[in-house]
Amino acid sequence: VAESTYGENSDDLAAVLLDICRTKKLKIAVAESCTGGLLGARLTTIPGSSDVFVGGVIAYADDVKVRELGVSENDIETHGAVSEEVVRAMAVGARKKFAVDVALAITGVAGPGGGTMEKPVGLVWICPAIDDQLEPRKIQSWGDRQEIRYRAAQAAMELARRLLS
Amino acid sequence: VAESTYGENSDDLAAVLLDICRTKKLKIAVAESCTGGLLGARLTTIPGSSDVFVGGVIAYADDVKVRELGVSENDIETHGAVSEEVVRAMAVGARKKFAVDVALAITGVAGPGGGTMEKPVGLVWICPAIDDQLEPRKIQSWGDRQEIRYRAAQAAMELARRLLS
Repeated sequence: VAESTYGENSDDLAAVLLDICRTKKLKIAVAESCTGGLLGARLTTIPGSSDVFVGGVIAYADDVKVRELGVSENDIETHGAVSEEVVRAMAVGARKKFAVDVALAITGVAGPGGGTMEKPVGLVWICPAIDDQLEPRKIQSWGDRQEIRYRAAQAAMELARRLLS
Repeated sequence: VAESTYGENSDDLAAVLLDICRTKKLKIAVAESCTGGLLGARLTTIPGSSDVFVGGVIAYADDVKVRELGVSENDIETHGAVSEEVVRAMAVGARKKFAVDVALAITGVAGPGGGTMEKPVGLVWICPAIDDQLEPRKIQSWGDRQEIRYRAAQAAMELARRLLS
């Protein structure tokens, strides 16, 4: 995916976010479902990311969301794994687990299967947790699986960048 | 990185490994240090990967290796985070944490900084754990940070593919 959602090239946005965190002495962790590690990979593409980036949980299976991030089974059953409730809990869980200032959580329907009328392919919830502040956002992305995943990671970094600036 | 270490295109190798695991009814998890999520991202690029791929830990900081994967602090102090002892412990830890058949662990020096005479940039340890069998391998990769990380993920998948075939 050459183009970017936000008019910046991909490495730049990761580097910009890391620089902001480095300046403010903030540590970052991630909790990723549909992106499967892509957000962590994007952040750690940048040399020196270990100053800021601590680690993450790839919570692909729902029971990993429950066991590793403290998402409630009831929320998954009631609202689905792609929901505001679950993305919030993922962000809170990652912030606690890694004892960081900033956690970025992503859960979505990357497709090509798994879409429904209510939750179509491309529906992604992202949620930065910055200290105790949670900022969940629903995005409806387009394109194929790769583009949806790329844009989800990009949107999570861009939202965190804006909230921290 | 267009070329591949093993003469297959990148998506194919992830798909091949997932197919082998699907056929054998094996579940996979990952434990990633220098690749920072790239291996998980590669595996989950493939539609339907959730049949096989459960999740992972991005253990970028050493204390995440200790707390989340049960790597011993003593091993990190004595042998360094990029060592056979640590990659073995990461693989064992991931297999237990996610209750999977196959865990793939990676730890290395992606550069451009951080290299030493003894452990130069490009030195990567990979270790598949297949049930109780551990198969650590040291690889010395070349190229820039992106290439080193890409090849590390590729080598881990390729080794697992061969061991499972």
